[in-house]
Amino acid sequence: MKSLSFVSSNYNKYLEVQSVLSNYGINVEFASISLNEIQSDSIKNIALDKSERAYREILKPLIVEDDGLFIDRLNGFPGQYSSYIFKTIGNLGILKLLEGSAFRNATFKSVFAFNDGKSSTTFVGETKGKISYKITEGGWGYDPIFIPEGLDVTFGVLQMTNKKSFFSHRTKALNRFVDWYNRLI
Amino acid sequence: MKSLSFVSSNYNKYLEVQSVLSNYGINVEFASISLNEIQSDSIKNIALDKSERAYREILKPLIVEDDGLFIDRLNGFPGQYSSYIFKTIGNLGILKLLEGSAFRNATFKSVFAFNDGKSSTTFVGETKGKISYKITEGGWGYDPIFIPEGLDVTFGVLQMTNKKSFFSHRTKALNRFVDWYNRLI
Repeated sequence: MKSLSFVSSNYNKYLEVQSVLSNYGINVEFASISLNEIQSDSIKNIALDKSERAYREILKPLIVEDDGLFIDRLNGFPGQYSSYIFKTIGNLGILKLLEGSAFRNATFKSVFAFNDGKSSTTFVGETKGKISYKITEGGWGYDPIFIPEGLDVTFGVLQMTNKKSFFSHRTKALNRFVDWYNRLI
Repeated sequence: MKSLSFVSSNYNKYLEVQSVLSNYGINVEFASISLNEIQSDSIKNIALDKSERAYREILKPLIVEDDGLFIDRLNGFPGQYSSYIFKTIGNLGILKLLEGSAFRNATFKSVFAFNDGKSSTTFVGETKGKISYKITEGGWGYDPIFIPEGLDVTFGVLQMTNKKSFFSHRTKALNRFVDWYNRLI
């Protein structure tokens, strides 16, 4: 079996990645490393750059992810800085910014970058939806305020019954990665 | 006269830098370059890293600046991502996040990094104050919502009468730079 590491400082993300990849018989190790990220308008560029830094650290084939929640009414905010903005103003802050607004469209985007020291390849996944009016239970990060299109519950609630992965931007990107990765063998 | 460039994509910042340095007989050129920035909790690290990227571009002695507005009630937000957050949610967003809060303390921080290809040195300036309840005229960026300690008008209003520089975090950092720079000769 090929060896593959997921380099991240976020264990919740690792659990989601492992859960999807194990369905395809791919074993992924958690390499808990906090990497410098560039500031960029493009999460794809952030992921690519991060995959190169990560490879220099561990010198083994790896994947990294960068993701973000892009809210139309807020010009894409929190976007590529979702993690920092979650830690400072959190979901309460997002709901406050959208107070009084019925236009709540948002997109969760995920980019995985695979790097084996020879080249780096990216895989994108997106899930469209809306920002809820209340914070629900379940999940982590922005999960409790994001309702995927066609449903009436948040990622948080879906996570509690192990259904988030069917709708997740992260799963979509990972599925694209798996299609490609399995042809590498 | 020694040659010195200010590398930035922000012409408003250049005008402020030039206005302060010209008082000391230092001539500074504007090098309009947009540089990649790392994501970091520390604006000092961002400025240091940026000064190295800038030197590789122009190969001449230079200064760069990184700055941010740190709001206590919002755990330091918008902080090191002040520029992105201004472009997305703007001053209206900041006021909305602080709606109903009387605790409005904030600090404007500026870090300049000088780089001549041999070494990089940083200079810090800070101005404490409060976030206003309304957006005023004048200035740019967060100037129209920041009231420096001891005054009752915003940086925006002060800028209109050319008084911002007496209270500015940027001026304080530049003064420290000048003290050091003039001894370099």
